[in-house]
Amino acid sequence: MEYSLQELADRFGGEVHGDAGVRIRTLNGFDYARKGEITFLNKIRNQEQLEQCRASACIVPEGVTSRFLPLLQVPQVDLVAARIHNFLLAREFQAAGVHPSAVVEKDCIIPEDVSIGAQVYIGAGVKLGHRVSIGHGAVIEDDVVVGDDTCIHARVVVAHGCRIGSRVTLFHGAVIGSDGFGFATDENGNHVSKPQVGTVRIDDDVKIGACTCVDRAAFGMTWIKAGTRIDNLVQVAHNVVVGENSILVAHTGIAGSAVLGRNVVLGGMTAVKGHITLGDGVMAAAMSGIHNSQPAGAILGGIPACDIKKWKKNCGAVSRTPEMVKEVRRLRKEVDRLTELLNNNESNHERNQGHQYADRH
Amino acid sequence: MEYSLQELADRFGGEVHGDAGVRIRTLNGFDYARKGEITFLNKIRNQEQLEQCRASACIVPEGVTSRFLPLLQVPQVDLVAARIHNFLLAREFQAAGVHPSAVVEKDCIIPEDVSIGAQVYIGAGVKLGHRVSIGHGAVIEDDVVVGDDTCIHARVVVAHGCRIGSRVTLFHGAVIGSDGFGFATDENGNHVSKPQVGTVRIDDDVKIGACTCVDRAAFGMTWIKAGTRIDNLVQVAHNVVVGENSILVAHTGIAGSAVLGRNVVLGGMTAVKGHITLGDGVMAAAMSGIHNSQPAGAILGGIPACDIKKWKKNCGAVSRTPEMVKEVRRLRKEVDRLTELLNNNESNHERNQGHQYADRH
Amino acid sequence: MEYSLQELADRFGGEVHGDAGVRIRTLNGFDYARKGEITFLNKIRNQEQLEQCRASACIVPEGVTSRFLPLLQVPQVDLVAARIHNFLLAREFQAAGVHPSAVVEKDCIIPEDVSIGAQVYIGAGVKLGHRVSIGHGAVIEDDVVVGDDTCIHARVVVAHGCRIGSRVTLFHGAVIGSDGFGFATDENGNHVSKPQVGTVRIDDDVKIGACTCVDRAAFGMTWIKAGTRIDNLVQVAHNVVVGENSILVAHTGIAGSAVLGRNVVLGGMTAVKGHITLGDGVMAAAMSGIHNSQPAGAILGGIPACDIKKWKKNCGAVSRTPEMVKEVRRLRKEVDRLTELLNNNESNHERNQGHQYADRH
Repeated sequence: MEYSLQELADRFGGEVHGDAGVRIRTLNGFDYARKGEITFLNKIRNQEQLEQCRASACIVPEGVTSRFLPLLQVPQVDLVAARIHNFLLAREFQAAGVHPSAVVEKDCIIPEDVSIGAQVYIGAGVKLGHRVSIGHGAVIEDDVVVGDDTCIHARVVVAHGCRIGSRVTLFHGAVIGSDGFGFATDENGNHVSKPQVGTVRIDDDVKIGACTCVDRAAFGMTWIKAGTRIDNLVQVAHNVVVGENSILVAHTGIAGSAVLGRNVVLGGMTAVKGHITLGDGVMAAAMSGIHNSQPAGAILGGIPACDIKKWKKNCGAVSRTPEMVKEVRRLRKEVDRLTELLNNNESNHERNQGHQYADRH
Repeated sequence: MEYSLQELADRFGGEVHGDAGVRIRTLNGFDYARKGEITFLNKIRNQEQLEQCRASACIVPEGVTSRFLPLLQVPQVDLVAARIHNFLLAREFQAAGVHPSAVVEKDCIIPEDVSIGAQVYIGAGVKLGHRVSIGHGAVIEDDVVVGDDTCIHARVVVAHGCRIGSRVTLFHGAVIGSDGFGFATDENGNHVSKPQVGTVRIDDDVKIGACTCVDRAAFGMTWIKAGTRIDNLVQVAHNVVVGENSILVAHTGIAGSAVLGRNVVLGGMTAVKGHITLGDGVMAAAMSGIHNSQPAGAILGGIPACDIKKWKKNCGAVSRTPEMVKEVRRLRKEVDRLTELLNNNESNHERNQGHQYADRH
Repeated sequence: MEYSLQELADRFGGEVHGDAGVRIRTLNGFDYARKGEITFLNKIRNQEQLEQCRASACIVPEGVTSRFLPLLQVPQVDLVAARIHNFLLAREFQAAGVHPSAVVEKDCIIPEDVSIGAQVYIGAGVKLGHRVSIGHGAVIEDDVVVGDDTCIHARVVVAHGCRIGSRVTLFHGAVIGSDGFGFATDENGNHVSKPQVGTVRIDDDVKIGACTCVDRAAFGMTWIKAGTRIDNLVQVAHNVVVGENSILVAHTGIAGSAVLGRNVVLGGMTAVKGHITLGDGVMAAAMSGIHNSQPAGAILGGIPACDIKKWKKNCGAVSRTPEMVKEVRRLRKEVDRLTELLNNNESNHERNQGHQYADRH
């Protein structure tokens, strides 16, 4: 399928500058795009940049013009480019059916319009939605429910009883529903595991990265709400709730029973303590260690995490600490010298001027 | 199976308060428990809390009473609840045999009372104990030995020659016995791998989390001792020894040849340097970076890790550092002014009073 | 195969001290080596150490002698030991062919001299080099290209279109070519995924650890250059370039579009910000958080990372900060007292001595 630039503008907004009839087949990165492709540029340094562009059109911020190629001026370049790219890539779902090497246990509900890859295992009582795709070697344990249009990539595990929404993507090697990490310790230091009898619920439009682990709840459920994006190698412990449209960057870890609001954004390698609450829109810089509950909108950094401005000030101050240690030592010497001097002065004064200050001592 | 509350008290200790004959089928979380279920509460805020409980009985700390429902008063609520829950969930092992899609190589010892899932691979010379369960898609390479009652979940890899004890649980996607990360670097900066010819030994009653990696030793073995609990996404490098009943929380990394004592507890994202020793009972807060060997009982925090009280003091002080930098600058100015003032005073004194201080200059 | 110590010296350099004809079958660790084996010792504490050695020969630093066993004196013990060990372990590749349970799609190029394990999936259009080994349960998606002598271990995923060089090792559970983590956010806080249409290129002689994830590029490619070693559980985001012979230790995360030079060494749990550049030979201590581009040769530590000497100074100073806070408070009191004292002195002076200082006020 091809579209004119004007058709794309009509569908996704923005104003065409230049030849509105130019034909667009797909979208590509600025350095890669060629004839028949549209590209995008968030910041325009100069016109030479656009002159070098070999695409048929470029999505640009409002106000940018060029005599070199047709432009689509939009308020949010990234967003429109993502929407156009998804639109141009969209293909009707091709159901491949169930690969003969897949194992499907009894009592499953599996529509005809699905693609179940090679060596997939589907446990008893699994219910799949329409147009579900399950990659090679994935394991879907008993009683899992999967919504429409969800894509489970190769070698994912969804453990028994977990519920996966519609239009969810689980990337390769992710593990959904492994046991939570819970135990009680006896008087001899031996650990007695607490059975983890809850499940995991993943709502619509969530994406979960490669080798990320979302543990099942002790009781009830661990819950990833709609629209949330989780990167690779993230740990989500039992009974955690992650609000809508949150973003957890790689290597982040959320300890048990923490509750995150909507649109929370945690930079890579952030750790969130168990049983705390992060309000809507909380953001944390990479490598934050969040020890306490945070109000909506808090922006954090550091270990333990504090307001990011405070953290940056702290970091700046810490880098001046070695010099300050020296300065404090110098001040100490000088103050001691001044004190001595002044004490001498005073006693000299006293000696010189009689005892008029004596009442002060 | 059902038990009376008294039967549970007889078996697991504690004192019944209220109807000792109430029948208990299973245990559930406080908010989830209903008739026929026992629940537990670590801290009782008020009687209203117990009034709202819909369970048939509740495990509570000693001294707590209620007119609303039968109680089991115990010294350690969590521990007794875990034991009772495990007891009520216990089922006789149901051997499913070897799934027809599994591949089993020659010279294996596989008892009849095991469950080998779909698409499992069992290499040559593997020896499995009784009642071993191996999840779908798991790979057990050549010459692995697995003890009785061990559960290896879906998609685990146990690489060649590793030894897994009895009653061990390996959660989904864990990798036991991948090569250690060792190499020597030549004069051109090229790395020559050091062959990793050791193995991994995992002792009885160990649990290892999803996507956790325990590397094989360069020589000898990497050794996880009995009763230890390792969370998800943990890295245990070659030749590490983890003592009995230790706890490694998610994302923790132990570098090569580190030796951890028994009952060591490392919070999430803790990093332990290679070739150091942590004594028995060492504990570290999440995100600690442990650079040096630690005596038994040390409690640590920070990067680099120090005594946790010291670390907390440091954190508090760091948060005051920006203000202190300003204060030190103010002090500098004031001290300079005082110095100047005093020098002037002195010289004025001298001028006024003759040269009686001259010997000081 | 066996070799005399002299034959090993002739091949790998170094000077034999003692019986050059002793026969060596393999190499083993110092505590493990027995007759017929060579071992190595980087540092010799004393001759007693060598007396206890039960190996047939020992690789030692230049200048070390012993009357207890034959020695191979070399300038770099580790390097020569690794080379000799690899040499002694080398076996001709034994092609096992394609396991009957493997699934191979159409249009693949698969030489006869490969080993494809059980339950492997090979997508359409895959091209494998000679002597490639693919472990059980691995998934090689469509159009992947793999060079000669590459070893892909059990349960690895290589997603569609990725290119793997020659003599590469991908350890168990690694995921190559999962989608990069990219999206734009609309005015309602909903995330629109940016299609990730690039690939991953892994050059010759790279090794990638267990459960490590290398994401495919948004456009173009994520690129791991020749000779680089990546440990377990590392995250390499989309469009990252890692230069030749670099070393990324476990749990390290490299954010999108970061460019690392050659021989970069990042300690465990290091985080590298997106879109920055690390020059050749940059080194970072474990748990560094690198926020800014770094020149070649920079040696870093801390969060945010700075010169490692500076970081160590900062750490030392921070540990003195609590005491310094107290000292600054004491100084403040003393300076205030001195100021007061001096002001009093002055006004007393003035009173005593008339108005000779009046012009200063």
